[in-house]
Amino acid sequence: MKKIVIIGAFFLSGMSVLAQTSDEKMLKDIYNSSLTNGKCYSWLEHLSNKIGSRLSGSENAEKAVQYTKAQLEALGLDKVYLQEVMVPKWVRGEKETAYILDNKTKITVPIAALGGSVATPKNGLTAEVIEVQGIEDLKKWGDKIKGKIVFYNRPMDPTFIETFKSYGGCVDQRYAGAKEAAKFGAVGTIVRSMNLRLDDYPHTGTQSYGDLQPSEYIPTAAISTNGAELLSQKLKANPGLKFYFKQSCEQMEDVLSYNVVGEIKGTEHPDNIMVVGGHLDSWDLADGSHDDGAGVVQSMEALHIFKRLGYKPKNTIRVVLFMNEENGGRGGKKYAELAKTNNENHIFALESDSGGFSPRGFSIEADDANFQRISSWKNLFEPYLIHSFVKGGAGADINPLSSGKIVKAGLKPDSQRYFDYHHALNDNFDAINKRELELGAATMTSLLYLIDQNGIME
Amino acid sequence: MKKIVIIGAFFLSGMSVLAQTSDEKMLKDIYNSSLTNGKCYSWLEHLSNKIGSRLSGSENAEKAVQYTKAQLEALGLDKVYLQEVMVPKWVRGEKETAYILDNKTKITVPIAALGGSVATPKNGLTAEVIEVQGIEDLKKWGDKIKGKIVFYNRPMDPTFIETFKSYGGCVDQRYAGAKEAAKFGAVGTIVRSMNLRLDDYPHTGTQSYGDLQPSEYIPTAAISTNGAELLSQKLKANPGLKFYFKQSCEQMEDVLSYNVVGEIKGTEHPDNIMVVGGHLDSWDLADGSHDDGAGVVQSMEALHIFKRLGYKPKNTIRVVLFMNEENGGRGGKKYAELAKTNNENHIFALESDSGGFSPRGFSIEADDANFQRISSWKNLFEPYLIHSFVKGGAGADINPLSSGKIVKAGLKPDSQRYFDYHHALNDNFDAINKRELELGAATMTSLLYLIDQNGIME
Repeated sequence: MKKIVIIGAFFLSGMSVLAQTSDEKMLKDIYNSSLTNGKCYSWLEHLSNKIGSRLSGSENAEKAVQYTKAQLEALGLDKVYLQEVMVPKWVRGEKETAYILDNKTKITVPIAALGGSVATPKNGLTAEVIEVQGIEDLKKWGDKIKGKIVFYNRPMDPTFIETFKSYGGCVDQRYAGAKEAAKFGAVGTIVRSMNLRLDDYPHTGTQSYGDLQPSEYIPTAAISTNGAELLSQKLKANPGLKFYFKQSCEQMEDVLSYNVVGEIKGTEHPDNIMVVGGHLDSWDLADGSHDDGAGVVQSMEALHIFKRLGYKPKNTIRVVLFMNEENGGRGGKKYAELAKTNNENHIFALESDSGGFSPRGFSIEADDANFQRISSWKNLFEPYLIHSFVKGGAGADINPLSSGKIVKAGLKPDSQRYFDYHHALNDNFDAINKRELELGAATMTSLLYLIDQNGIME
Repeated sequence: MKKIVIIGAFFLSGMSVLAQTSDEKMLKDIYNSSLTNGKCYSWLEHLSNKIGSRLSGSENAEKAVQYTKAQLEALGLDKVYLQEVMVPKWVRGEKETAYILDNKTKITVPIAALGGSVATPKNGLTAEVIEVQGIEDLKKWGDKIKGKIVFYNRPMDPTFIETFKSYGGCVDQRYAGAKEAAKFGAVGTIVRSMNLRLDDYPHTGTQSYGDLQPSEYIPTAAISTNGAELLSQKLKANPGLKFYFKQSCEQMEDVLSYNVVGEIKGTEHPDNIMVVGGHLDSWDLADGSHDDGAGVVQSMEALHIFKRLGYKPKNTIRVVLFMNEENGGRGGKKYAELAKTNNENHIFALESDSGGFSPRGFSIEADDANFQRISSWKNLFEPYLIHSFVKGGAGADINPLSSGKIVKAGLKPDSQRYFDYHHALNDNFDAINKRELELGAATMTSLLYLIDQNGIME
């Protein structure tokens, strides 16, 4: 008996060595393919430079749907189709203007209306300013807020190593700042841009009036970090100074748009679905190359690599290019809703929506057993300098997806530069490094491959 | 007895937990200090934007010596001084011109003379071109090379994950290409730029004529990667085309320059010296912000952080800003020579000369015991996403330093973007991210601290 056990153990360990070796070879092929014959950089060049910014409901967003659909069709996938989804349409209107009125001096500062904001009165809005360090400060000021502009100026904390944590600790000022200040009678809000760097770019982003009545909505805009520093400094010298801003943005009727979907049918478990995706829409100030053109083309590249290597997945692999992550998340919700309606069994979903920088690892939403299993592949990723396997949120678009024991993951690129560009006018193609983008695509493809080979633990 | 052993073990393990906790706290303080009160970004801004390129022997190199010396003095170190070193002085002269002469069509391409190259004849040089994939190809062509321009066009291999490996596999074409082609009677050489990206920037760098007689020297220049692709393509269509280039560079007499040195005296072992450094000189085409302005200011920052935290090192910590790494390495050699003459005991040397990008780890030159010891600190570095501890070369400037069992290390930043800028006109301050630079400085300071606390194993 003992002998048999030993032989058995040897046999099993031999099997596992073989699997490791063939996995090692497959990962090497995946990375080589991405770095030598990848299409993601040229796809992104088209999305960014030939199409441009892709805010939901815009003509460019529609062009991006048609372009990516055609590109997926050209890959010879088993199926490429669109999913209808109604999306909000918000338009910025003419470029915003703003200045500090310090006695008789006007100092122009760069602002950008926040997504979903209402316009100022046609000739703009002038009021005194109350600077706060966050929503929790509003109570301190109470009635004094009435008729004023609230200026949220809590900066991102530079001591977090991962910049997404700094963002998480600040973004409530942008998302809920107007709603909360309106309750105290503010006439507008100005928010320090979510940016760790001091520069002149205002960073837009979504905001919500929550359950306020439309009559209670107040205009809100982001100010560049340099502008915020200046305003704060001027306020210290003259607390009675005024701030002027003018914006003509508008929320229109919802319009029809699409998620773009392409799939390779699984050979063994065609009903098990693995999703890989990013979001097709972007903010309107730039090309959205990092947010999230990068995630879109990396997800497309995963299927491209499998096709090129002749790899036939056991499970169905589906690329989904979600519409409307930025200001509504309607694409993600619609996809999850249809998955439920159609009784689809999703075993895995992987999103890239943290920029196209050097990949460092994955943020994983899974139970302990599946998390341990994925972490056990760390050694396979080591030659590619992928080292960070942590539990955490996977991505906004795949968040609504719930299906049995679905495992989710988000690609974690190096985060140091991300908020230099996020939602600002410099999120353009020249901020992309081809190799970093391709390494990210290969890293995603490798995880898809390993999950496809090993399944998830139900 | 057993009881005593257990207590002893408990006591020891308690000690080690305490050490770990105080080390954890110290690393946190170091990173926080760098990210919130660091000076390295503003120092680099001055070096890059106020001074500019710093080729050995140039006026700017001298300005950089004076500036960094003054900044180190302002830190209140125990000692700041200059080390005299004679350096080669090579000057580019007027901007190079080059074109492909394809029948009657002239197509201008961007080139830059390689450091140390001789000039072409005053009116330039025109000849037919032989394209080779490397020095080993020369033999195949033999006598046909006579009177021709040899065009080295082996690209950097994109499938290496670490770009320094790709560089290592190509740079012989730049360093020794002219010398080898001259032996076959070539009249000049053109080398594809050491760049993984296709763009229009020629990348200069040092080259050597080895033991050729000056009368045998032939002019040599780098061509941009796009230029190399075009030349190669045109050659396929017309092998008889000619290439013209003109450069007026010149090797002058050696001039006096300096290494800049500053130190904090050790409290327990003042005779044990730990060096941290980068090189002050740069190529002449750009500000050299990544190569190696970054390493210079990160090294200065290490001492700044210790001073700011009030940390009194047990061993003497010395920052050395080496002159002439790029085209001679004279500063590194001089430093090592003086260390030997003065019978100094160097226990550790750390260099940063791989760009100011997100730090990933260290390349370590040490025996197994010291390598294992340093690797055992990996968990302390994990919160800062420092994960790569590998054996390998530490740095060109500290390479000549040999002293007992000296341990050496080089900072390993993310390497994907490095060769986009290396020795080219875009290696400027705007390619630097403040946080990445600061994280690198903190990573270096942390390793210095740990070595200072634990010593090295003799």
